[in-house]
Amino acid sequence: MNAHSQTLTLPGSLPLDGGGELTRVELAFETYGELNADRSNAILLCHALTGDQYVASPHPITGKPGWWERMVGPGKPIDTDRFHIICANVIGSCMGSTGPASEASDGHPYAMRFPVITIRDMVRAHIGLLDMLDIETLHAVVGGSMGGMQALSLAANWPDRARRVLVIASTSRHSAQNIAFHELGRQAIMADPRWQDGSYYGGDGPDNGLAVARMAAHITYLSEEALTGKFGRNLQDREAKSFGFDADFQVESYLRHQGSSFVERFDANSYLYITRAMDYFDLAADFDGGLVEVFHDTPVRFCVISFTSDWLFPTPESQTVVRALNAVAANVSFVEIETDKGHDAFLMDEPELHKTLTGFIDGAARHRKLDSR
Amino acid sequence: MNAHSQTLTLPGSLPLDGGGELTRVELAFETYGELNADRSNAILLCHALTGDQYVASPHPITGKPGWWERMVGPGKPIDTDRFHIICANVIGSCMGSTGPASEASDGHPYAMRFPVITIRDMVRAHIGLLDMLDIETLHAVVGGSMGGMQALSLAANWPDRARRVLVIASTSRHSAQNIAFHELGRQAIMADPRWQDGSYYGGDGPDNGLAVARMAAHITYLSEEALTGKFGRNLQDREAKSFGFDADFQVESYLRHQGSSFVERFDANSYLYITRAMDYFDLAADFDGGLVEVFHDTPVRFCVISFTSDWLFPTPESQTVVRALNAVAANVSFVEIETDKGHDAFLMDEPELHKTLTGFIDGAARHRKLDSR
Repeated sequence: MNAHSQTLTLPGSLPLDGGGELTRVELAFETYGELNADRSNAILLCHALTGDQYVASPHPITGKPGWWERMVGPGKPIDTDRFHIICANVIGSCMGSTGPASEASDGHPYAMRFPVITIRDMVRAHIGLLDMLDIETLHAVVGGSMGGMQALSLAANWPDRARRVLVIASTSRHSAQNIAFHELGRQAIMADPRWQDGSYYGGDGPDNGLAVARMAAHITYLSEEALTGKFGRNLQDREAKSFGFDADFQVESYLRHQGSSFVERFDANSYLYITRAMDYFDLAADFDGGLVEVFHDTPVRFCVISFTSDWLFPTPESQTVVRALNAVAANVSFVEIETDKGHDAFLMDEPELHKTLTGFIDGAARHRKLDSR
Repeated sequence: MNAHSQTLTLPGSLPLDGGGELTRVELAFETYGELNADRSNAILLCHALTGDQYVASPHPITGKPGWWERMVGPGKPIDTDRFHIICANVIGSCMGSTGPASEASDGHPYAMRFPVITIRDMVRAHIGLLDMLDIETLHAVVGGSMGGMQALSLAANWPDRARRVLVIASTSRHSAQNIAFHELGRQAIMADPRWQDGSYYGGDGPDNGLAVARMAAHITYLSEEALTGKFGRNLQDREAKSFGFDADFQVESYLRHQGSSFVERFDANSYLYITRAMDYFDLAADFDGGLVEVFHDTPVRFCVISFTSDWLFPTPESQTVVRALNAVAANVSFVEIETDKGHDAFLMDEPELHKTLTGFIDGAARHRKLDSR
């Protein structure tokens, strides 16, 4: 499989939903598989909150396999022998695309001078990248969680740029409970004295606060069944309770590990900005109307997938999207997958997810909505 | 209503489940209503994690009404005209009973030298208090959440000390997900440099970390429906998003307030110790067997109550207790109350909760299990 790492700088400036603009926007991205002659076989993968462009390549910091190796590769559901896969690090992140750790025009890191961005701003940058790559229409855009928000935003705002949109374990608006969990994470980061109002670059960052934020997030990624099944009340490498504050229980040890390993690879300010973008996501509000208005006359073919045990983006949130699409007679299929793995199921071995993806990506033109626009 | 504040010191020492003992154990408690001549009308109320003895008296720090004013008073479900109500601050806490902030024998605060305690240790201290008060058998013991754990522990370990046990929104063992949320809170506290391994007394404590811990807990106390109904995506005192990191959304503002007000009244080390005690709670494990063994031949009459939208202590956890009680033919009634208020419902205006409590507390002797022991 051909994997290529590239970084491109968008020409001109990127206008932002918040009113300002970003200049010298760099986008770091990976590609897999060959672009065909008529440039029609490109698939854009959109990553989640703490994800990155290393879909099917080893992570440069952790050395771990790509986050969707099981899904992307030769002969896999997203088949690199047939498709040209593009995954770009979102703006605001920290793996090579412009974010709070990047240099501003004064040569110092933006830190908290970085503008607050939205999901649509991230997608606007992706569209800029597609323009540079001379890709007019994607075969598909695919994303889970925050990646699903990007996929929906692309379909809503640039409906002619993708023929298929696949949204996994996502939502059209971030819920109060999810905003609450994000705010908890942000407060944990900002409470860390080493955060220093975001100006910690070159010194020690708010690792403790960021680790706590990550622990909170990880609880929401697993279902209660998964946590119980995986850990229950099992003790960690000991026969009996220690009557102390060590990680007696496996679940404690797991969370501590998730927190401490995360800080090695992620920037705390990026966590602030990206969670904020997710909290602001409300597709209908962007269109001053109901969700039905958003997708009126859409030429896109949709597939929406949810997981029964996902309590972060539960099935009713997907159903809201599907209902709106049905109300405008859009071409949409909806699959709720029975699993006890919770939100994280989209990253895991779920045969029905693989099957659904394979079918949808393959889906011949006969399935496309006939539309004369 | 007669409200009395008292503090008593237990005679001798209190043996602990962890192997050690506590000496000079002080218990601060409130009483309401008169104890009758044969000392048979006492009801012990057990408070929750961050609760205290101020059930129906203004809180001495916040000035707010007692936490169960709506339930305890003349003519109320727990009727102070008929019953003598006792509520003691649990050991490990910080409202007058011996805890990590108390002086050890060397004249300095225990801090992290305080022993790790269990729910049964808390109840053992309550039993010591009842002995001092010359109350052999309680009319009832009543508790919600961690208070329910205490009520169950009392019934299991001192079955002759209470005729009725009422357990609200609780469990017989703390789940992996709940341990995870507690560990998150503890890590937030310990990550705060002002925690200083617990030796912060006399200076600034880990207020930031404690506030984050409280925010995490508060998310779990409300149901998603309640959060959505109460806040949704409503903005806080503004017309539009600020594109900044202020508390744009009401739910953010609510959480920040919960965090910052909590630190005024609670000690961070107490939060560590009490959450640990809850995590260790596993009633069956205490008896080296199944839950059925715990309640074999119990003379106690039980009432178990759960709330449909409580995801911290969901109904199946109550049903596990009820099934075990049924398996030993104990006298038990079980009520699942339909509400969208989540775990916090036990502190709120829930007519069916009031009705159930009134009936159970009143319940005449004819309902008692005939038992010749």
